[in-house]
Amino acid sequence: MSAAELPDQVRSPLTLAVYQCQSRPLDVAANLERMERVAGQARTRGAEVVLFPEMFVTGYSIGASAVRALAQSSEGAYRHAVAQIARSVGIAIVFGYPERDSTDRVFNAAQWIDGKGEVVLNYRKTHLYGALDRSQFSAGVADPSNLQLGELNGWKMGLLICYDIEFPENTRRLALAGADCVLVPTANMDRYDFVPDTLVPTRAFENQMVVAYANYCGPEGSLRYGGLSSIVDALGRPLAKAKRDETLLVAVLQPAELNDARLQQTHLQEMRAYMLGSAMNQ
Amino acid sequence: MSAAELPDQVRSPLTLAVYQCQSRPLDVAANLERMERVAGQARTRGAEVVLFPEMFVTGYSIGASAVRALAQSSEGAYRHAVAQIARSVGIAIVFGYPERDSTDRVFNAAQWIDGKGEVVLNYRKTHLYGALDRSQFSAGVADPSNLQLGELNGWKMGLLICYDIEFPENTRRLALAGADCVLVPTANMDRYDFVPDTLVPTRAFENQMVVAYANYCGPEGSLRYGGLSSIVDALGRPLAKAKRDETLLVAVLQPAELNDARLQQTHLQEMRAYMLGSAMNQ
Repeated sequence: MSAAELPDQVRSPLTLAVYQCQSRPLDVAANLERMERVAGQARTRGAEVVLFPEMFVTGYSIGASAVRALAQSSEGAYRHAVAQIARSVGIAIVFGYPERDSTDRVFNAAQWIDGKGEVVLNYRKTHLYGALDRSQFSAGVADPSNLQLGELNGWKMGLLICYDIEFPENTRRLALAGADCVLVPTANMDRYDFVPDTLVPTRAFENQMVVAYANYCGPEGSLRYGGLSSIVDALGRPLAKAKRDETLLVAVLQPAELNDARLQQTHLQEMRAYMLGSAMNQ
Repeated sequence: MSAAELPDQVRSPLTLAVYQCQSRPLDVAANLERMERVAGQARTRGAEVVLFPEMFVTGYSIGASAVRALAQSSEGAYRHAVAQIARSVGIAIVFGYPERDSTDRVFNAAQWIDGKGEVVLNYRKTHLYGALDRSQFSAGVADPSNLQLGELNGWKMGLLICYDIEFPENTRRLALAGADCVLVPTANMDRYDFVPDTLVPTRAFENQMVVAYANYCGPEGSLRYGGLSSIVDALGRPLAKAKRDETLLVAVLQPAELNDARLQQTHLQEMRAYMLGSAMNQ
């Protein structure tokens, strides 16, 4: 395709919120309570979708046995509790949780529930990070069922989780499938500020797509999270960026800005064919 | 492989120089003269290899007919003139030039000549940028002959040119082939500071390899180059970074730092197999 024939141009704005907070480990009820409160605040500020950090419902660093005890199926209790919040507030919600599958494996998952309470996407982290992740989770498979796009206001959006974003192949795959935006729940430690400051903007720039990155801040057990959550435009520029403390970011994604970015930067059209082929290869 | 069995550990330091300067279009004699002067300065400062910008010998934005008139084969006059400089100074030189092949096509090329005057690598830019590049050059093919690594002091190094670095597939391919460092002659305009400031460090970080980026500064015809040349370590941190004016950067690459970076960050080992397969696919 050439820049003149960009398909499926986005035509409507989308207001997106990103919530950054301390992790509240093991207290599902408290986390769902603040999800409801924050979703309401996001809606009041005009947001149509709000993104929460990795494993938001249970906390992230809670140990393998707690993860296993708290894990739910993608159609389980969390899905229904969040659907209830999404419906009552009238906002789409993307959140992290531990998912148990029918064979009793547990995944580090994220789910997108729309404003009517329906599941749009369920994604299982494909790239586990370090001993902590590996002690708690099985890795998601990389088949196409785990790399889908959903749509809101004409914006096609995909999900990745934390370490997944550090691999350019993951965002490229979503971009080539037509993603306008990637939503990334994360639990990134403060010694890896490089990721929000430098790598996340690069992912947006090199794919001409918006990236939203929702991190924790403050401590969780022996971990210390770095905050710096962001909403980055399709030229790699921050539309909104958090510091180290709790905050709710809100940004309006404008179709004209997305389309203009795709006229200015054309990496997706100018990738050589051999790379296009290999990127789509499973 | 696991982090414990990293193959082919680099064992010696390598001192690398990057020259940033104004383009001097169409004056081959003057460019070779300053190459000799700068190579001598780099050697005096301990450098074992010096990297010059894209199309250094002729200037970059000189028009299709001048490019065609000045193009040489990879075994032609430039190769011999630079080999003479490399031998007399006792330093390896990596430089950009217009290359004519046996079928009279012209490529945007870079050549690495060792301190004995032998050609180590010749690389043809695979990703042409914009109307200017396309009016002047054919694109290099992406077959393995054009994506080789050379070696200096045990450091395996590959070449990319300018826009090539913006595609993560290009650096990934070299990293998976074992590159410790990628050398990038460029001609990057000042409205694309994002590339040296943000994207180049990301390429280093996500592949655990050093990236050296040699740009022009100042004007060339209607273009205005942004400088900001850099030598970035394998964790994405600048070892040396230029401002907007002429400069010669020199940095010592330490094997212990490279190996430590590869213990801290392990993207290459943790890429899922499906991506490894596709990245190697031609």
